[in-house]
Amino acid sequence: MRFQFSLIAIGLEVTMIILFGVFVEYETDQITGTQSLSTHMNGSLDLYPLFQDIHVMIFAGFGFVMTFLKKYGFSSVGINLLIAALGLQWGTLVQGYLYSNGKKTRVGIRNMINADFSAATVLISFGAVLGKTSPVQMLIMTIIEIAVFAGNEYVVGERLLASDVGASMTIHAFGAYFGLAVAGVLYRPTLRKRHPNEESVYHSDIFAMIGTLFLWIFWPSFNSAIADPGVNQHRAMVNTYFSLAACVVSVFAFSSLLEPGNRLNMLTSHTFLCRTQVHIQNATLAGGVAVGACADMVVHPYFSMLIGSIAGIVSVLGFKYLTPLFTTKLRIHDTCGVHNLHGLPGVIGGLASILAIAVGETDSFLKYKKEKNKIKNKTKQTIQVSRPPRHSMGRQAAALFTSIATAIGGGLITGEHKKLTFPCTSCSQRSRR
Amino acid sequence: MRFQFSLIAIGLEVTMIILFGVFVEYETDQITGTQSLSTHMNGSLDLYPLFQDIHVMIFAGFGFVMTFLKKYGFSSVGINLLIAALGLQWGTLVQGYLYSNGKKTRVGIRNMINADFSAATVLISFGAVLGKTSPVQMLIMTIIEIAVFAGNEYVVGERLLASDVGASMTIHAFGAYFGLAVAGVLYRPTLRKRHPNEESVYHSDIFAMIGTLFLWIFWPSFNSAIADPGVNQHRAMVNTYFSLAACVVSVFAFSSLLEPGNRLNMLTSHTFLCRTQVHIQNATLAGGVAVGACADMVVHPYFSMLIGSIAGIVSVLGFKYLTPLFTTKLRIHDTCGVHNLHGLPGVIGGLASILAIAVGETDSFLKYKKEKNKIKNKTKQTIQVSRPPRHSMGRQAAALFTSIATAIGGGLITGEHKKLTFPCTSCSQRSRR
Amino acid sequence: MRFQFSLIAIGLEVTMIILFGVFVEYETDQITGTQSLSTHMNGSLDLYPLFQDIHVMIFAGFGFVMTFLKKYGFSSVGINLLIAALGLQWGTLVQGYLYSNGKKTRVGIRNMINADFSAATVLISFGAVLGKTSPVQMLIMTIIEIAVFAGNEYVVGERLLASDVGASMTIHAFGAYFGLAVAGVLYRPTLRKRHPNEESVYHSDIFAMIGTLFLWIFWPSFNSAIADPGVNQHRAMVNTYFSLAACVVSVFAFSSLLEPGNRLNMLTSHTFLCRTQVHIQNATLAGGVAVGACADMVVHPYFSMLIGSIAGIVSVLGFKYLTPLFTTKLRIHDTCGVHNLHGLPGVIGGLASILAIAVGETDSFLKYKKEKNKIKNKTKQTIQVSRPPRHSMGRQAAALFTSIATAIGGGLITGEHKKLTFPCTSCSQRSRR
Repeated sequence: MRFQFSLIAIGLEVTMIILFGVFVEYETDQITGTQSLSTHMNGSLDLYPLFQDIHVMIFAGFGFVMTFLKKYGFSSVGINLLIAALGLQWGTLVQGYLYSNGKKTRVGIRNMINADFSAATVLISFGAVLGKTSPVQMLIMTIIEIAVFAGNEYVVGERLLASDVGASMTIHAFGAYFGLAVAGVLYRPTLRKRHPNEESVYHSDIFAMIGTLFLWIFWPSFNSAIADPGVNQHRAMVNTYFSLAACVVSVFAFSSLLEPGNRLNMLTSHTFLCRTQVHIQNATLAGGVAVGACADMVVHPYFSMLIGSIAGIVSVLGFKYLTPLFTTKLRIHDTCGVHNLHGLPGVIGGLASILAIAVGETDSFLKYKKEKNKIKNKTKQTIQVSRPPRHSMGRQAAALFTSIATAIGGGLITGEHKKLTFPCTSCSQRSRR
Repeated sequence: MRFQFSLIAIGLEVTMIILFGVFVEYETDQITGTQSLSTHMNGSLDLYPLFQDIHVMIFAGFGFVMTFLKKYGFSSVGINLLIAALGLQWGTLVQGYLYSNGKKTRVGIRNMINADFSAATVLISFGAVLGKTSPVQMLIMTIIEIAVFAGNEYVVGERLLASDVGASMTIHAFGAYFGLAVAGVLYRPTLRKRHPNEESVYHSDIFAMIGTLFLWIFWPSFNSAIADPGVNQHRAMVNTYFSLAACVVSVFAFSSLLEPGNRLNMLTSHTFLCRTQVHIQNATLAGGVAVGACADMVVHPYFSMLIGSIAGIVSVLGFKYLTPLFTTKLRIHDTCGVHNLHGLPGVIGGLASILAIAVGETDSFLKYKKEKNKIKNKTKQTIQVSRPPRHSMGRQAAALFTSIATAIGGGLITGEHKKLTFPCTSCSQRSRR
Repeated sequence: MRFQFSLIAIGLEVTMIILFGVFVEYETDQITGTQSLSTHMNGSLDLYPLFQDIHVMIFAGFGFVMTFLKKYGFSSVGINLLIAALGLQWGTLVQGYLYSNGKKTRVGIRNMINADFSAATVLISFGAVLGKTSPVQMLIMTIIEIAVFAGNEYVVGERLLASDVGASMTIHAFGAYFGLAVAGVLYRPTLRKRHPNEESVYHSDIFAMIGTLFLWIFWPSFNSAIADPGVNQHRAMVNTYFSLAACVVSVFAFSSLLEPGNRLNMLTSHTFLCRTQVHIQNATLAGGVAVGACADMVVHPYFSMLIGSIAGIVSVLGFKYLTPLFTTKLRIHDTCGVHNLHGLPGVIGGLASILAIAVGETDSFLKYKKEKNKIKNKTKQTIQVSRPPRHSMGRQAAALFTSIATAIGGGLITGEHKKLTFPCTSCSQRSRR
């Protein structure tokens, strides 16, 4: 078993290369007409800056946000890189298979964005099991989780026809509950004791802020990248921008409210922040997660800010009260608190999209009709008017339920599989909160 | 007073959400014609990559550049995030009010850029008062300063019709002198003693370089984002790029000239840089500040390089000779040296724009006439020819004067207000240089 | 000699400003027709996001990847900034002179990309001589190397008509062998002893990962920026993306295979990564280097992944077996292991481009003919069909040979010059691996 990791990793990479050789070709291979080629290419290349923003989030953002653990900073960044690099190749193949109707997968910038998304799902789950699994187990979890993720995403988007442009449900809630289910299976009583390595140190907290900030900064790209180009994409950027800003102010406010002995006018900002850093590093991002499902809808900026604020507050409360409960009562040890950062805000996102449709559908529908009448006599080009009212509360609810159920089911199976195949005796100690 | 910070922050965020509900709508709401919609959207989305560059500067750049203080790295990044998140919401509202002529504010990518700019102004002032104020005071300063900033910017751009595309005067000089005025009011004699926390440590200096580099790298986006699309925007990118490069070489040269005992051919680069790190972290950015006001003018690349070099040299001299004088004689303690990084280079930027018009206006005017004649018989589309000669030396001088005067006035009032309302006894100790 | 560095740096900057004044003008100065202006500007501004990605790589990526040395982190970032800032000015002038046919150089976004590329070449060489040279020597090396680099690049691209869109040969192999030649001349027996400063520390390794990740993330932009817009550019992005992902998995696999005592299922990820960190920091990037020369060719994604995997494996083997041999047998001390990261993968890139042409040329040629026939009767616009078959194995081989030979020749002369002019007695000690 000495070379187990090497052999499995080599085997996986060889498999990937062979599958790419058989099933994948360039997006540009199929395009022959010159005009359509030019148009198509421009659309694809327009996505490239958004892709690069997301690429930074996956590899630098997720990587650094997990560096807070004393002595485990480097390994978090390193394993993050490995998982994401394997995940994006496998994600390209699985998603390609599902959407290609038996033809070859034609890869372009849009596939690269979706492949990065599938990697993100595993990285969220990784936050729940960090310190409990070996590299070999992570490779296997990557393969299983992305297959389940792609299946669920396909059902939500193509069968249920639900709307989840920023993937609140299909990535964030899914990734969190998948990881929690795995963590539940791998639970050991020793995790309840506070391990010395659990503590963060001063520098590792600043490193973690690198991750937090790059995730925070580029989140508008994450939520808008696969939106319909034009008006919807634009709206997704605006909504996410304001949701995140409102979230930050609310998190700072509630975080300081919950910490005892808080005489703030006497406090220097330093002492103030030290007690609330886990909230600042994590809960400030909840606004981006929660606004995802309705980011491209006509929800009005103030509604986005409301969602962001609520998600931030719920996330702070989760870190304060729920995570300890999870460890002691539910016997689920959530290393990075992904339930508070991705799980709860993802659920809030799903609920917000239902509410948005309940409240706004009429508006949106009337608006759509009005615009449609206006342009009736003009040439109807490929221009986007506000989205046709195909949204439905029932579909959104079904999407939320399906995502969580699939995630928990998939996670339990993965966890049991891990336990059986690769008993890991020495790695049940690191953790935090 | 125990929950003072929480209550004020919650109150502010609730106010923001209500004001957004009443006064703000999506930019896309008002656009109904399909063709104009498409054109407009493309223009707006073209700005998105520039917006993201600026977003990195505000949240990662400004955040990390202030991490140099021993033990205060995390709080600098954290409070930076809070101020910027509150500031961009408030900036959207105030700027929207001023430019909307009584209608609702229609938010889009351009508003997001301007909102980030208004946050930048407060962050610059924050650099001067870092360690002297409580989080509550920072919230209040954010609200007051952005209101004053937006008013001054409106006067400079819409009333004086001055040109300041990279905001040398309206953001950098304004933010610096506002912060210095506040710092002057909050001065206490204890600040003259060198406090142990004033020292930077090795790692915090590398963290600060993260901030410096991301500011340096994305500065061409900062100076070009609100330029007229096309030729002017292009020129702003080119001018800023070369100004910054020339600035770096000049700063290294003068920095090593000013430090005693400098036998450079015997020195390893390590020893060399340790004595000059505050210059490298700050003065290398002066070129971006100073070229801002004339970045989109036809000033010739060599002129930009000259401005950048001069600004870098002046900034180094400021750190060496002026900052100590400020503390001892003027009783103004400038924690991060914002006067050298933003104040002086901002003034140089204003003066350079006057000089550029004095020297180049004729050229530019002749050129404009020539181009105009050439395209007279063709259809005059929306294409930008080099800017019409509406620049004037007098307007630029008035803009510079107005910005500094408003900043000092606003800063003094803010400082007095702080002193009266929130006496802060324990927070007058941290500082540097 | 006390002010030697200052005087040389000031002299260089003054020379740059004068040369810019005489030889450089804005790209936009020459464009007068309104329609062509608009079209041209759009093309140029489309490159801007790619430029910014590359700008991050040069200043943050290369800067931080060299911070791994204990106590030399700050100086690596600082000198990196100085070299790159000087290099991009000089690169603009030299490249402008070579391509302008005696006219003035018209600078725009494309020149800024190429200027950043010329700076990259020197930064690669800097990695081989880090710790062996003074700042003065680095200034002189920058001037000499960029002149030689630009000459070689001109010969490869304009005379040999070879294809090297990602600059595997002209930047990476060239920079590495130039640096190694200089390092060979500057060799001293003391370098064989392991110096205490050679060791990296925990935090500096995380700083180095910042560099690694930003290089890794933005490499698709590096390889596609100067490709023909449209299909070729798109393909360069896709190929680089998958090559890098495959490279990461292969590097992790082989790295753990080569390290003794590797019982991975017992290992926590932390212990695992500590022994392989130099590979993770460096070899993971080899895939981007190696796919560069054929990135825009129709090579099929699986071929890119194969190149990436092979380059990663060779790079790991190089760090393990070749670097020690270089120090002991060849008397070349390669501080950062640039031979493994840039030299060998660059050579692999050249060979891969020869192989790609050998295998794929027929396909590509047939495809080109077919497409050409299809669009014969349509208006042939400026649209890119797959590149005409001007590639040739001989030209690629000649380009590879020329690049390496020129680099070694240039490096030897530069090294001898350094030794004679600026004997550096105290700086021969820092190094690693």
